[in-house]
Amino acid sequence: MEISFPSGKDSYSTMRQLKWSSTEKVIARRCFDQALQRELSEAIQSAQKMAAKISHASELWELERHLTQLRKEIDRKYDYRYSRLLLVFSDLVQEGQLDLADLRGLSEDKLRYIRQHAEAA
Amino acid sequence: MEISFPSGKDSYSTMRQLKWSSTEKVIARRCFDQALQRELSEAIQSAQKMAAKISHASELWELERHLTQLRKEIDRKYDYRYSRLLLVFSDLVQEGQLDLADLRGLSEDKLRYIRQHAEAA
Repeated sequence: MEISFPSGKDSYSTMRQLKWSSTEKVIARRCFDQALQRELSEAIQSAQKMAAKISHASELWELERHLTQLRKEIDRKYDYRYSRLLLVFSDLVQEGQLDLADLRGLSEDKLRYIRQHAEAA
Repeated sequence: MEISFPSGKDSYSTMRQLKWSSTEKVIARRCFDQALQRELSEAIQSAQKMAAKISHASELWELERHLTQLRKEIDRKYDYRYSRLLLVFSDLVQEGQLDLADLRGLSEDKLRYIRQHAEAA
């Protein structure tokens, strides 16, 4: 059966009702963890570059603000709830942190939703 | 006239009434700025060392917490109000960030207060 995704509140309610098979859960978890690890590695590298260039105290507090912002952004973005996961993946594909090919194995409906939302973002 | 410093609230009120000559203000400002600059330089170096060693995300957020704590501590410590300055200098001498010799030129009463408080801390 093909599931259609209405927009807004209805879309959220549809996503809550979506079924995730065991295989899909494994794929989702792997993709999620890989993207998160990649993003954290990038964050470490960018912070190290920033730190190495510091010569004034103002840049030290700039690094602090940068890290706080980064932490909040990553916390917000990486939300592993099945009711949110398609939106999370859409954002990651849109940002280039994840490739649609990595998600192969998810149902066609889920992949279509992710692709459409990534293109629309 | 020799000023005696009572303890607690009275000491604070005595310090508020202290007179600072122009020469003393110049000495105080120079010592304050030098100690602050030294502390900021140390903070930059320690942050750079911490950053360079980061290999896990948890250490990234540890660096963030370290910087936040450092900023608050420095803000709290470096309080350039004449009513607070003798306490600030006492702390700096006690911590080894400032030498009593650097403060030469302040009145004997002020120097005695700073020395006594630095030793008592």
